[in-house]
Amino acid sequence: MKIFTDELRLQTSGKGTYEISDQVHRVIRESGVSNGQVTVFLCHTSASLILMENADPTARRDLERWFDRLVDENDPDFIHTLEGPDDMPSHIRMALTRSSEVIPIIDGNMVLGTWQGIFAFEHRRAPHNRRIVVTVMGK
Amino acid sequence: MKIFTDELRLQTSGKGTYEISDQVHRVIRESGVSNGQVTVFLCHTSASLILMENADPTARRDLERWFDRLVDENDPDFIHTLEGPDDMPSHIRMALTRSSEVIPIIDGNMVLGTWQGIFAFEHRRAPHNRRIVVTVMGK
Amino acid sequence: MKIFTDELRLQTSGKGTYEISDQVHRVIRESGVSNGQVTVFLCHTSASLILMENADPTARRDLERWFDRLVDENDPDFIHTLEGPDDMPSHIRMALTRSSEVIPIIDGNMVLGTWQGIFAFEHRRAPHNRRIVVTVMGK
Repeated sequence: MKIFTDELRLQTSGKGTYEISDQVHRVIRESGVSNGQVTVFLCHTSASLILMENADPTARRDLERWFDRLVDENDPDFIHTLEGPDDMPSHIRMALTRSSEVIPIIDGNMVLGTWQGIFAFEHRRAPHNRRIVVTVMGK
Repeated sequence: MKIFTDELRLQTSGKGTYEISDQVHRVIRESGVSNGQVTVFLCHTSASLILMENADPTARRDLERWFDRLVDENDPDFIHTLEGPDDMPSHIRMALTRSSEVIPIIDGNMVLGTWQGIFAFEHRRAPHNRRIVVTVMGK
Repeated sequence: MKIFTDELRLQTSGKGTYEISDQVHRVIRESGVSNGQVTVFLCHTSASLILMENADPTARRDLERWFDRLVDENDPDFIHTLEGPDDMPSHIRMALTRSSEVIPIIDGNMVLGTWQGIFAFEHRRAPHNRRIVVTVMGK
């Protein structure tokens, strides 16, 4: 039984979804683990992770816009506004999605569905450098 | 330390929640693991996983209807509509819930709460055959 | 490869977020694991887990209020109302957030972001005693 940890850095260019499936796969390959599972963890509270369809980019655009509408930047009830109008909505969108994803590995590959990709979901308007930790466990 | 992976197949009959706790428990028993954890992973982007009360079915009906209302099938903003009006809402409902659940195992049993069950959440109207991968790690 | 499980008990005083990062860290220290990951699991369907900013408490207040507004206690569509008006909303808020969180451990510490804390999210109005299981795996 092996455990292998690596860190990814993602430079975002503001709000949106960024696929990281290939980078995660590279860590699995490097780990030498054939059967087990990989945990992807994003170390921030104003960005998050989702698994999402990666075939048609319009699906991600609709999802991003839907979240934009659900959590209003100009919500008059917000009092945590010191870091800008996009800060508090970013925490809520993070809480509504995920910070960690655990994906099984069989024969050296993640058992993702055909169009299932791993995405970082940047919720801030400004570009950010995001830290993502990948942990592979197995044999 | 042992790692054991198995695959479940779930035939859904359209939108709704389907309990899979017993099937997951069977994989744990088969694995021979007494102490550790089980990861349940659903390999799709138009269905998801939730842990939910499994005593009173009306709780699930209310939850299903609430998600139906929150993510409107006739949202005029959606542009990803080629696969039908229930496709884009299914991706959003998936992102709002979960694709993986990790549950501790003590003495051969999941430490679920008294009325806490594991459910697949089908978001498409048409019946689908869903693939769920169960990974047991422990001793 | 080691696996270590411990149970936390959290006494809540009603709706709100309760940081448990220190208690989780104590279990990791006790486990003796330096590199691996910790899984935090909450055994209830009317409370949940989130990772959230732990610097400015107003951020949590905004988040709590936002969830209160999104899932209305007086929703006339709810039929699962026997356990009180805050019961059904609590299940939905749980499904929208998380029941398990998996966090990497490097050199004996969780790799949480600078202001990223682990919180139990109590959704019921009455005080509850919540059971949280912490599983540490690694070397």
